[in-house]
Amino acid sequence: MALLADKHLVDVPGFRAQGVWAQIKKKSRDVVLVVGPPGTVGAAVFTQNAFAAAPVLVSREHVKGGDVRAIVCNAGNANACTGEQGLKDARAMAERAARHLGCKPRQVLVCSTGIIGRPMPMEKVLAGIDACAKELDSAEGPEAAEGITTTDSHPKHAFARVTVAGRTFHVAGIAKGAGMIHPNMATMLAFAVTDAPVSAADLDAQLRQAADATFNMITIDGDQSTNDTCAVLASGTEGGPRLKPGTPEMDAFQHGLRTVLRELARMIAGDGEGATALLEVRVEGASSLQDARAIARAVAKSNLVKSALHGKDPNWGRIVAAVGSCGADVDPGRVSVRFESSAGSVPVLRSGEPIPDVLQDAAAVLRPREVRILVDLNLGPHAAEAWGCDLSEEYVTFNSAYST
Amino acid sequence: MALLADKHLVDVPGFRAQGVWAQIKKKSRDVVLVVGPPGTVGAAVFTQNAFAAAPVLVSREHVKGGDVRAIVCNAGNANACTGEQGLKDARAMAERAARHLGCKPRQVLVCSTGIIGRPMPMEKVLAGIDACAKELDSAEGPEAAEGITTTDSHPKHAFARVTVAGRTFHVAGIAKGAGMIHPNMATMLAFAVTDAPVSAADLDAQLRQAADATFNMITIDGDQSTNDTCAVLASGTEGGPRLKPGTPEMDAFQHGLRTVLRELARMIAGDGEGATALLEVRVEGASSLQDARAIARAVAKSNLVKSALHGKDPNWGRIVAAVGSCGADVDPGRVSVRFESSAGSVPVLRSGEPIPDVLQDAAAVLRPREVRILVDLNLGPHAAEAWGCDLSEEYVTFNSAYST
Repeated sequence: MALLADKHLVDVPGFRAQGVWAQIKKKSRDVVLVVGPPGTVGAAVFTQNAFAAAPVLVSREHVKGGDVRAIVCNAGNANACTGEQGLKDARAMAERAARHLGCKPRQVLVCSTGIIGRPMPMEKVLAGIDACAKELDSAEGPEAAEGITTTDSHPKHAFARVTVAGRTFHVAGIAKGAGMIHPNMATMLAFAVTDAPVSAADLDAQLRQAADATFNMITIDGDQSTNDTCAVLASGTEGGPRLKPGTPEMDAFQHGLRTVLRELARMIAGDGEGATALLEVRVEGASSLQDARAIARAVAKSNLVKSALHGKDPNWGRIVAAVGSCGADVDPGRVSVRFESSAGSVPVLRSGEPIPDVLQDAAAVLRPREVRILVDLNLGPHAAEAWGCDLSEEYVTFNSAYST
Repeated sequence: MALLADKHLVDVPGFRAQGVWAQIKKKSRDVVLVVGPPGTVGAAVFTQNAFAAAPVLVSREHVKGGDVRAIVCNAGNANACTGEQGLKDARAMAERAARHLGCKPRQVLVCSTGIIGRPMPMEKVLAGIDACAKELDSAEGPEAAEGITTTDSHPKHAFARVTVAGRTFHVAGIAKGAGMIHPNMATMLAFAVTDAPVSAADLDAQLRQAADATFNMITIDGDQSTNDTCAVLASGTEGGPRLKPGTPEMDAFQHGLRTVLRELARMIAGDGEGATALLEVRVEGASSLQDARAIARAVAKSNLVKSALHGKDPNWGRIVAAVGSCGADVDPGRVSVRFESSAGSVPVLRSGEPIPDVLQDAAAVLRPREVRILVDLNLGPHAAEAWGCDLSEEYVTFNSAYST
């Protein structure tokens, strides 16, 4: 499998994607259309927030059965807490896209991100969809990734080429993250496309598996947005026989999908509000996958760990406190902790005992932009990763600015 | 029931309490002894963290059965992640206190707070216990409250006089909170004493009930310390017949105990690291007590809500996102949100619909030092309160300073 940095959604056979500026945001593209050929299937996972936004409610209906072939998305307004009118507006977005594509409205997923509790500027949104459709074939590649950003510091995309048993599939993805000041909440959106031939039901299972190990393991500030959505479309354009679960081909596809989502998840975590460092937490030796994930998340989301990372402070006391706080199976006398980065790898705790005279070396390991905390529980075979970022003064400054 | 601001632990009949400076901290008292007369019983609740510190492990043993009459505590070193030596040191503290008091070591609870992963300065600690014992009768009142502080901005104490059916009980408490920079973790300690005649088993039940509604509803940064302890001693000095569960007398005692712990919990929340405002979240209309508590805690601990409070931003979008994120029973169309403080009371969301043109008024309500967010779910009869503080740039500055 290869990750190709300069390839985009439109480089996956069968797919078109465009982003335009519809003047919903002050500048930069803000309406996006991602379209597969007839026969494309889709799957999606959504926020569990009880206040799910209108586009999430509509997309949940549309994705049932997997007969979807397009995604329409706007940035600048989240269409959340907008009541009946919001549902009408989300449906109108799907209808307008479907009219251009010659498909049924329910074959279109709808996503929105931006400020909540405000009426959608539907005139601009619909004009944007028209413009996207008109220019669908002339995209150069990066437009869609740009079009879903809000206050992200950069567009986020990833592309994997998967080769297995003489066949080649492609998986590409774009995402927007948590670098949000004005729209009040850290909506995460990710759209992936593939030319692999996968049934709708299998695609759903593969997406859930990949998202659980990637998007569900990011934590910026522990808050969950009303609009979070991760969707994938599969065109089958590769043309070979359908992949079957449990085969090396499907495993390779899962690996490709997970790698793309993992890249996007890492980019989102590293681009958190005010973040100056990407924190990767890897938990090994857990007695269950659930425990490994709970602990990895607990460490990655601890404000005290995040603040320590910001100060380049190898404060393992805060790490073990987070490890011990989530109710997972832990034996304090067996826990080892190590810091890793491009600057080196330094153990600070071995089998529950502090290692003397390592803190200066450990602090040096925390200086690079990407840092890993490795926790070995020494209890079992399960491992998990989670991603977060440091907590900076800028996070607070951003988020306390009067924005309502 | 009356709260009396100028009364202390030593004003509860039967109790003595002293705090001295043993030079563990750079300045201010750091070793404390709280002692009831023979016949006193005790109860305590402890951190659930898997990395519970040595004094917690020892005190858990000692409190079984409730035959305890004293608490010995040091600040400046948490005796956490200290292995076998730590356990020996914690036991030595109980032994030294017991020798002075003429009781068994297991009648003494042990608490420590401060830096973790460092050997205990036992010479200083034991000398401090000797000094406390020597000066036990000469305390003026505030010494013990001062002696358990670390970087708290002020000592915390509360005193309630409970009158019921012609009888009068007293409940006094001291606490230390989360205003901690150097010792790396936000240890919460609270010690209460009462002259009410309560059996050890009943005292345990009453404490758990009161702590669940107070100490377990504070959130500073979501992290849980290795040392958190809330203990209560009951001397029975009042002299009347033992209180029985389900009687107005026991209800009045619960009310007094809960009021004292609630006062201390509020002080701890308002004195969080870098905090400039106390946030009280009250959830009403929940379909279960568990849901009410989960939602109150979710709102009080949301970094986005805390940042908004810091910026005096009536950002109800972040509040509903937190309400919806914790898996509790919520109907978005029924939720109402209101801001309250000494500056007024302003509804911002009614039955899921934003109330127009109130944000400027709502922002004014957020200006005072104590602010309440009221969430009405309109689903059932259950209510809960939680306490937190705003998230300030200073929190990050404090916690990212190199401290290991």
